[in-house]
Amino acid sequence: MPDPTDIRNEQIERIRQALEEGSVLPLDEEIAELHPADLAEIIDGLEPEERTVFFQRIPPELRAETLSEVDEEAWSPLIEALGEESVRDLFEELERDDAADILAELPREDARDILARIEPRDSREIAALMEYEEDTAGGVMTTELVSVPGHLTADEAIVAVRVRGREVNDFYTVYVVDAESRLLGTISLQDLILADGSTRVDTIMEADVISVRPMADQEDVSRLIAKYNLVSIPVVDEFDRLLGRITVDDVIDIMEAEATEDIFRLSGVDEEEQEYATPFEIVRSRVPWLLITLGTSGLGALVVAQFEDTIQRIAFIAVFMPVVAAMAGNSAVQATTVAVRRLALSSGRRRPIKSLPRELLAGIVMGGVIALILGFVGGLWQDSMRVGLVVGGSMWASIALGVAWGAAFPLILDEVGLDPAVSSTVFLSTMTDLISFLLILGSASYFLSQWL
Amino acid sequence: MPDPTDIRNEQIERIRQALEEGSVLPLDEEIAELHPADLAEIIDGLEPEERTVFFQRIPPELRAETLSEVDEEAWSPLIEALGEESVRDLFEELERDDAADILAELPREDARDILARIEPRDSREIAALMEYEEDTAGGVMTTELVSVPGHLTADEAIVAVRVRGREVNDFYTVYVVDAESRLLGTISLQDLILADGSTRVDTIMEADVISVRPMADQEDVSRLIAKYNLVSIPVVDEFDRLLGRITVDDVIDIMEAEATEDIFRLSGVDEEEQEYATPFEIVRSRVPWLLITLGTSGLGALVVAQFEDTIQRIAFIAVFMPVVAAMAGNSAVQATTVAVRRLALSSGRRRPIKSLPRELLAGIVMGGVIALILGFVGGLWQDSMRVGLVVGGSMWASIALGVAWGAAFPLILDEVGLDPAVSSTVFLSTMTDLISFLLILGSASYFLSQWL
Repeated sequence: MPDPTDIRNEQIERIRQALEEGSVLPLDEEIAELHPADLAEIIDGLEPEERTVFFQRIPPELRAETLSEVDEEAWSPLIEALGEESVRDLFEELERDDAADILAELPREDARDILARIEPRDSREIAALMEYEEDTAGGVMTTELVSVPGHLTADEAIVAVRVRGREVNDFYTVYVVDAESRLLGTISLQDLILADGSTRVDTIMEADVISVRPMADQEDVSRLIAKYNLVSIPVVDEFDRLLGRITVDDVIDIMEAEATEDIFRLSGVDEEEQEYATPFEIVRSRVPWLLITLGTSGLGALVVAQFEDTIQRIAFIAVFMPVVAAMAGNSAVQATTVAVRRLALSSGRRRPIKSLPRELLAGIVMGGVIALILGFVGGLWQDSMRVGLVVGGSMWASIALGVAWGAAFPLILDEVGLDPAVSSTVFLSTMTDLISFLLILGSASYFLSQWL
Repeated sequence: MPDPTDIRNEQIERIRQALEEGSVLPLDEEIAELHPADLAEIIDGLEPEERTVFFQRIPPELRAETLSEVDEEAWSPLIEALGEESVRDLFEELERDDAADILAELPREDARDILARIEPRDSREIAALMEYEEDTAGGVMTTELVSVPGHLTADEAIVAVRVRGREVNDFYTVYVVDAESRLLGTISLQDLILADGSTRVDTIMEADVISVRPMADQEDVSRLIAKYNLVSIPVVDEFDRLLGRITVDDVIDIMEAEATEDIFRLSGVDEEEQEYATPFEIVRSRVPWLLITLGTSGLGALVVAQFEDTIQRIAFIAVFMPVVAAMAGNSAVQATTVAVRRLALSSGRRRPIKSLPRELLAGIVMGGVIALILGFVGGLWQDSMRVGLVVGGSMWASIALGVAWGAAFPLILDEVGLDPAVSSTVFLSTMTDLISFLLILGSASYFLSQWL
């Protein structure tokens, strides 16, 4: 038997090819069999005009879930292409958190029209969700959940879950609340089924609940879910009233997005750069960072310009400049990367600082090793111990300073409330260039000029 | 009311401080109240000798889960410090996949002793799990799951789940199997509770199940879970027989580890570098990459050395060298980073290649913009259009080539089956250095030497 994953990929590939050849008609059955996530993947790979055509071929009952999975930028055109009635059906079908996210991306007028057309209760809750900032717990949560009063027995709770659970997708946890809908605890469906039917739920619930406030940063939410191995986390207000829940599938999306953001920022790419960015969008996303590089490397050039005279007299020093700069830059990039990643993964704030002394010591050792090699090569090549000492010495200092700066800078940025990832290899490597040039050209003009 | 997350963090902080002051005794109650994930976090932050002391203070019923959450390197010493009986209790309590992972890290002798001491059935299954490669679906799955035959009614299935579910932690999905334990479908606990009690489970189950083979790469597993918003995924053999399941909390750990691996590799840090690495371990993790940098930047230096004569005669060109090299390096790093991340997130193999022409075009445009600025500055400074053309031209070509190389190299690595992240900014930026030096010094010596 072939691997199930392969079968699925082949199916997607077949549809993609048929679309490219323009023969969509005989594919309606295949389309109806695909998972919404696969349909979304196909849409993301299509050109904008093909997308709307394809989306309308998708059976209405699959559209909501498909839409919630496609790239944000496709939402508005896909919805505009649908008729009024289809749009209403679509938004009644969407989970409320997805509905709120999608409406927030539409033109204000369109969003208001759609809200006016759907059921008032849904509409109110969606509008309330739209009030929260996009990257907070409130902005990610859904209000669809199942809760029961604490005084019910397990059997009564199962009956209540049967009634209330019909409209809620994917729930694994039942929230136990008091009369003011304050969260008392949680009980998993598993424990509810396994429990003796006559026991009160508030005696078997997990009372020590990990919950978050609606204003909590989505990154902190995903750290909690990852750390405590949760499948969902309740969102409560300052009076402990249950507002909603965040599920693990949203958290996975957040984690992927946050990791992408960190990786892109470290390399000076705008975190909004999309997978199917046009060349113009790519340029817009990256040129700002290149201009910063131009500025910082211009500073380095000014340093070099001060020593034009030295370079003219001992041109061989220009051979060592790029080596010293590259080594200092890369050791700083290593230290920064580690610090940024540790900060992203640590839930406690203070721990990465503890590793600073170790980084500094490691920098001194690594610098020493590399300096010995380069100093030896330099000294042999020019047949002068003095050259070896100048080259090795400036190499040592450059690496040690580079590692220190690379390890400390993200911590400083984090301390003052900035994103440590903007310490970015882009910015960093040109700064270490500058320092290395100053060190090697400075020491060369001081120690070697008279002697040559 | 204070934020619940803050209360938890304060509690952890209190214990940590008490530990630092050596006053652990009055804290036993507080320790018993903490979540195993918090206890694991505390342990990870302690020095090796303090860890074993603290671990023994943890109530036996919390030890298994705590142990499965601490860093791998702490497993062996923590277990060695326990008595024989405690070790047996610990391994009976551990989930089988965690038990297998931990045993695999212990000395072979110790692992065999422990396996001999625990219940034969557990022991057999754990030993079987240890046979799978660490980073495959088989290596990550657990064999603890709840399955029911397809001919049962929903009510009968709930009774069966009640019996079989007692020994299984955290399950949300019941697997429906035939008499040969081939997987027929899945049904969530939610749907089982909501179903009419007299319907057969094989009529209400989800028959189109997304499953994986035991040899599947854990990265592919985590992509499937992320894409299809799953909370668990079944592992089946080539005859569709159910072998185990992988849960979303394991997938989150995999995703974090894979993202860290990519980030570290991109910057030339060994992906095994631990959070509490000693200075010596840091040096060992990073020096190999620095030595590669030394080699590749040495090549760049050889290029520069060929043009020592040119530099001596027109030393001002040395001022532009670091600028051109930095710009080419950073635009290549941007392109590589985007390509590596897209490859990591895409489930279909062919898509990132589609963006190559866009990258190339973007590189030409970005190179043009930067070249105009630098060429203009260079021409004005030396009051020579020829200098402006040489500087601008080599800048343009360096960036365009850098972007092309940076975007294509990860795809080539991926195509031949290597990890694209090893294209690494470290390696890349010294390669672009070399090309830039060749371009600027070559064109300078050709176009400017006679003229000066």
